Amino acid sequence: MSNPVLVEVLRGGLVESRHAGAVAVADAEGGLVLALGDVERPVFPRSAVKAFQALPLIESGAADRLGLTEAEIALAVASHGGEPAHVETATAMLAKAGVDASALECGAHRPSYAKAAQALIRAGLKPSALHNNCSGKHAGFICTACAAGIEPAGYIAAAHPVMREVMGAVADMAGAATSGPGVGIDGCSIPTQAAPLAAVARGFARFGTGAHLGPERARAAARIRAAVAAHPHMVAGTERFCTEIMQIFGIRAFVKTGAEGVFCAAFPELGYGVALKCDDGTTRASELMMAAVIGKLLPLSEGEGQALQRFLTPAMKNWNGTEVGSLRPAGPLA
Amino acid sequence: MSNPVLVEVLRGGLVESRHAGAVAVADAEGGLVLALGDVERPVFPRSAVKAFQALPLIESGAADRLGLTEAEIALAVASHGGEPAHVETATAMLAKAGVDASALECGAHRPSYAKAAQALIRAGLKPSALHNNCSGKHAGFICTACAAGIEPAGYIAAAHPVMREVMGAVADMAGAATSGPGVGIDGCSIPTQAAPLAAVARGFARFGTGAHLGPERARAAARIRAAVAAHPHMVAGTERFCTEIMQIFGIRAFVKTGAEGVFCAAFPELGYGVALKCDDGTTRASELMMAAVIGKLLPLSEGEGQALQRFLTPAMKNWNGTEVGSLRPAGPLA
Repeated sequence: MSNPVLVEVLRGGLVESRHAGAVAVADAEGGLVLALGDVERPVFPRSAVKAFQALPLIESGAADRLGLTEAEIALAVASHGGEPAHVETATAMLAKAGVDASALECGAHRPSYAKAAQALIRAGLKPSALHNNCSGKHAGFICTACAAGIEPAGYIAAAHPVMREVMGAVADMAGAATSGPGVGIDGCSIPTQAAPLAAVARGFARFGTGAHLGPERARAAARIRAAVAAHPHMVAGTERFCTEIMQIFGIRAFVKTGAEGVFCAAFPELGYGVALKCDDGTTRASELMMAAVIGKLLPLSEGEGQALQRFLTPAMKNWNGTEVGSLRPAGPLA
Repeated sequence: MSNPVLVEVLRGGLVESRHAGAVAVADAEGGLVLALGDVERPVFPRSAVKAFQALPLIESGAADRLGLTEAEIALAVASHGGEPAHVETATAMLAKAGVDASALECGAHRPSYAKAAQALIRAGLKPSALHNNCSGKHAGFICTACAAGIEPAGYIAAAHPVMREVMGAVADMAGAATSGPGVGIDGCSIPTQAAPLAAVARGFARFGTGAHLGPERARAAARIRAAVAAHPHMVAGTERFCTEIMQIFGIRAFVKTGAEGVFCAAFPELGYGVALKCDDGTTRASELMMAAVIGKLLPLSEGEGQALQRFLTPAMKNWNGTEVGSLRPAGPLA
């Protein structure tokens, strides 16, 4: 059974391209409020579950012991653009752990925010691991280790005590695999754990409400949500969907993207969690799918509705600035 | 009826993402040698039919009158990387037409080849229309106009005499629309004309063999194929699929990519043309689909088979260089 087409790309008077996918919206008990496509097949939620991966940083007491700020906690959940503020914040987290950038094991890549990448080239500098979109998450792992007196080196391996905690948190929250074919390696070298969208959505309903979580985990989840809502630029960056959506909705919508077309969200006021994946892994489609889910579920003021509109029918312009096409939600998301 | 999954993306022990699509392989009479998915639905073949769009440049006598070189003819068919050789060649074409880069109406964008883009930033220069991947095609349109004493300004409009010839050639070769909902605007601002994959494939069978073409068109097609085979770097560039495939196969395989996941080819020795589209518009999938079609159809020497292998199962590496996944042909392409 193939998943339904949920996003169409228009050009001229025709549908030029199509994106199929699956969407799960669940409550904290796992009841499915919305299920489009196959929501029971395991998928890799990738960076969309960074909030779950950051739970041990809070629960272990490391964030308090090292005096991490709200902005630093937000960066621990980020897929950031490598902008100066992101690099400075990751650097500060590492300093609090008593180490420097050489402790990062995520690998280096050019800032994903184009202007930051260009500035680096103009300055004649090479990108470092601090520019890696996952450097905040990795700095969080290193903080977790150092605050507990654990040697951080090798923290990306499944057998490292910090990564065991991290993988345990993802397994608890999302019913994710901890071994076998459902464990792959992510772009930043840590394990990525497959889970069904339905289970991930249930996990985000719990993350958003604290329901079915122990008191310590519920407090950690609330603290992470508050940190990201207060610092939406930290979690992604300039011209980024996650940042702009949370600038509109604040604490009402925690949204987080992941590679290969995954997107997760928590809407605390509704008690719902969301997990979706575009089959083909394309971000333009996963973002539109998330915008459509927000539009369908969240009660919107007139201003919020207007602000959401450009995410629902984004225009495609050519190199002369002429609008040549657009995207739209399709099928059951239309 | 949805199209079949033709490409799978693997991570851990799971299929992480899937690309559906359609493939038509036809002979010059339009007989379908291979038809996967819906090959009768009109699609925009985008830059994959630049070879058809360049026919008037040759047939009008403009290429001869202006003394265009083989490399310049190859660039007229290109989606190039904006590398220095591409920019210099486009500049030379415009000079032969008696104009300069200000005559280009394609718009400016950064070179698509990253190292060329970085060199431009380091030099403190802005990208110009010469760096646009379509600048050679546009230079060809301008040459066609100027050699005939036609004012080139406005050549991107469907009503311009040169664009009428160009659209007529695409309509003749591929059964493409010349008006109505099947005409959109391309990234470089010229019209893009929808046609069924089956008809586009038949057009490339004719382009590759000259069958069912008048003698003048057959000669023009052969001249374009020879130019591209002799200058595969001109038609795309460094680290580009089209260039590398034609460096392997020379005149035996004319291959040309287009935006939104289209790919076309001509295999003259077999008398076949190919047109395919990945439904979701992703290039990683359309390239793999084309590699799989080549592997299925073209007789390969041992060396050619080995050279093709890395295009058939490309590895995905993370930022530490660890192999974390791979792509493979799937379903009827496996």
